[in-house]
Amino acid sequence: MRNLSPVTYIVSITMVLLSIFMAIPALLYLGEADSNTTAFAYPALGIFIAASVGILLTRHRSHRLQPRYMFVLTVSSWLIISILCALPLYFSNLNLSMTDAIFESFSGITTTGSTVLSGLDTMSPDILLWRSIIQWMGGIGIIGMFVAVLPFLGIGGMRLFATESSEWTEKALPRMKSLSRGLLFVYCALTLACILIYWVSGMSLFNAVNHAFTTISTGGYSTSDQSMGQFNSNLILFEASIFMALGSMPFFLFVRELHGQHWVLFRDQQVRAFLGLLIAAALVMTVYRLWMHEEHPLGLFVSALFNVTSIVTTTGYASEDYLQWGSFTSVAFFFLTFIGGCSGSTSGGMKIFRFQLSFMVLKEQFRRLLHPRAVLTRNFNGRAVSDEIIASMIAYVFVFLMGMAVMTLGLSLMNVDLTTALTASITALTNVGPGLGPVIGPAGNFASLPDAAKWILSAGMILGRLELLSVIILFSPAFWRT
Amino acid sequence: MRNLSPVTYIVSITMVLLSIFMAIPALLYLGEADSNTTAFAYPALGIFIAASVGILLTRHRSHRLQPRYMFVLTVSSWLIISILCALPLYFSNLNLSMTDAIFESFSGITTTGSTVLSGLDTMSPDILLWRSIIQWMGGIGIIGMFVAVLPFLGIGGMRLFATESSEWTEKALPRMKSLSRGLLFVYCALTLACILIYWVSGMSLFNAVNHAFTTISTGGYSTSDQSMGQFNSNLILFEASIFMALGSMPFFLFVRELHGQHWVLFRDQQVRAFLGLLIAAALVMTVYRLWMHEEHPLGLFVSALFNVTSIVTTTGYASEDYLQWGSFTSVAFFFLTFIGGCSGSTSGGMKIFRFQLSFMVLKEQFRRLLHPRAVLTRNFNGRAVSDEIIASMIAYVFVFLMGMAVMTLGLSLMNVDLTTALTASITALTNVGPGLGPVIGPAGNFASLPDAAKWILSAGMILGRLELLSVIILFSPAFWRT
Ligand SMILES: [K+]
Ligand SMILES: [K+]
Repeated sequence: MRNLSPVTYIVSITMVLLSIFMAIPALLYLGEADSNTTAFAYPALGIFIAASVGILLTRHRSHRLQPRYMFVLTVSSWLIISILCALPLYFSNLNLSMTDAIFESFSGITTTGSTVLSGLDTMSPDILLWRSIIQWMGGIGIIGMFVAVLPFLGIGGMRLFATESSEWTEKALPRMKSLSRGLLFVYCALTLACILIYWVSGMSLFNAVNHAFTTISTGGYSTSDQSMGQFNSNLILFEASIFMALGSMPFFLFVRELHGQHWVLFRDQQVRAFLGLLIAAALVMTVYRLWMHEEHPLGLFVSALFNVTSIVTTTGYASEDYLQWGSFTSVAFFFLTFIGGCSGSTSGGMKIFRFQLSFMVLKEQFRRLLHPRAVLTRNFNGRAVSDEIIASMIAYVFVFLMGMAVMTLGLSLMNVDLTTALTASITALTNVGPGLGPVIGPAGNFASLPDAAKWILSAGMILGRLELLSVIILFSPAFWRT
Repeated sequence: MRNLSPVTYIVSITMVLLSIFMAIPALLYLGEADSNTTAFAYPALGIFIAASVGILLTRHRSHRLQPRYMFVLTVSSWLIISILCALPLYFSNLNLSMTDAIFESFSGITTTGSTVLSGLDTMSPDILLWRSIIQWMGGIGIIGMFVAVLPFLGIGGMRLFATESSEWTEKALPRMKSLSRGLLFVYCALTLACILIYWVSGMSLFNAVNHAFTTISTGGYSTSDQSMGQFNSNLILFEASIFMALGSMPFFLFVRELHGQHWVLFRDQQVRAFLGLLIAAALVMTVYRLWMHEEHPLGLFVSALFNVTSIVTTTGYASEDYLQWGSFTSVAFFFLTFIGGCSGSTSGGMKIFRFQLSFMVLKEQFRRLLHPRAVLTRNFNGRAVSDEIIASMIAYVFVFLMGMAVMTLGLSLMNVDLTTALTASITALTNVGPGLGPVIGPAGNFASLPDAAKWILSAGMILGRLELLSVIILFSPAFWRT
């Protein structure tokens, strides 16, 4: 248990930050008619006090963390924050069940954006703002974790992105701190830019703030049941596409750009493949809809670009019910749901680089079949890709697909149909948000699913957000043997 | 072109054998009222003459085959035989379109068993017998290819099963011949045993022969639209389960058993996992149906065992419409469709050993996460599993999943709905037979799909049967550079 004191310390600090964010909706809407002041204020106060006690009790202990406690820290901090974020929703005027409040909160903090709520257009603004804040916190949380924890843990091939600064030695600490400051700056700057641009393009300030929060974090919560469709503006759809794409790029590359390494972003293999995919998929869908005798090519392209970007970046906004476009686009969105953005961003999914590595292995295989004695080396962005990285990628993909199968089977036990069960599992694990079909498609929501299904999906969202292996390893007996 | 003469020689010899098999239905039903004698006799004669010319022209050439021409031989021989097998169907009294005849024939020779035909119960017996013969030939064809070609090509991790005798040197030739004789003996012996057992259990001799042919080959064609449900006998369902399972085990292990290596079959890791899976899945489904208030546990178990075995072995028989059992079983059958039997058998799918290797990599990954400096070795059935084998397995899985996505997108362009498009692609690539949903589920058939969809699926069945990579490599430009 002594080993857990650094875990307690770091979680407590995070909780203090959380309590400050939780106070914001209370203060902003203090005294207004439909506000939920106490629903925010009491939990915020309670969290602040508990966290302060936690900090006082552990501040003099050593903060050196054994590697395996990194897993405990990661999973427990995400779980605790997720549960605490649900409190204002539970105590609010929404009269949510505990299950629904937890689902909405997990969906928020993991930037999944699946919702059990409807009637967003008439909801209290403090609740809407809180949902957006949760996603915004989740976004910066995952970026920080990517830099500080995941490559160090060597999960799912992410060691590929390890730098000297992710070695967690005393020496690397100043560099790590500087990188963290840079990431926070970029995240805030992009958010501000997005707010401004949305605002001048015709959104109210309230809508601009909320949507900027959920765009940069690729979260996808909106202030209307019609999502981004409410603004009826191709300009806004186009701007949102740009900012969702920015939120899905490796943030450490932005920091490097700021430090003078120009064009590092567009020279990155992952970023190039990501942008290429967005444009190619949007063009194909546009051509398909023109072929289906729809009109206005430019409008079709913007609509396709927006919805493709929304799914590939795992944001999950919708501008319209794209399942109405035809069988081809439904199937295309099904497969696009898996892909995800770049590693090191706020987006989820399997991540572009894993597809690139797999394709690399395939090309290598062809060469080997033709020239059995050829000596081959793989590299990605100029770095050698070891067999160990490939193996850890396979482990990730295997667990992802098994997780998808187990969750789908679990949902089907509650009599959820195949399409809903399958796409709900995928959309939870990839943190995308909407599924396919009439129930949970872009025009539906998750309210009608049975409670047990919501718990399974909440677990799936956390699993997906933490790249699965860092959670599942906690269930291996070997982990708990000294 | 000179390099192609050994290809021509081997294909010609195969064609002679084919013409003999094609003559059988003509001779057996000569002069009967609804027979299609000329539809069999003329193509058989034509093939025999063409093949004889081919043999005469190439018999004095060297038969040493350059490695890369193995790919050409493999793909071209399967394609040619598939097309030739369609001739009697096309010329028969069924009045099939060319597309339907090709689809039925490709589905037969690849032992997929998807059908565009209905009214099987009243169909001319020579046609029914021919469909069964096609599948039986396809079954022994794939076993032979597994031993003689695939491990040598090093595709999809199959080098794991390479023995000295798969090195294709002059020295290994006698051993290879002896192994081939053993395989043929085992295949015929199992077929005979299956005929006998079906016969004494109440099938007519005609039905016993047809179903034995399509059981051992895990093909799944039947003589009735109700498939195995026509016999209304739990005994027959149980026997079929046993023989489908036998057809899905590595045939070279049967040969080794015959040569006195006792229990080699049940000590094999792949076989154990395969049998374990069948029993576990059947038990789970039985419990599920009891929980859903159905009655007669023993009958439910036999029914579950039969249908699970039918899907996992990629036979594709049905005894009833299992999509009526509930959402859970539909989802379970969806995932079972991927798995497939053992490598080295007549069954298709991704094959059990690939799941075992992936699981091995995952376990290794966990150990590495906890003990970064641990030295780990993998082995399967006592053989070391190199990184090269893992890489070739990933290449296979990646191509399989990409192929599934591309085929599904292709089908959706013809306005096929998501469930039908997705499960049709999967069932074609895995050579299972039935898909899910009302159109191509166990109670439906493939007749209503658009022609272009049937061509895509025919290509998919061949791709799946030849483990994808051996076909796709022919489309790589590097292949055709000297
Ligand atoms: K999302
Ligand atoms: K089959």
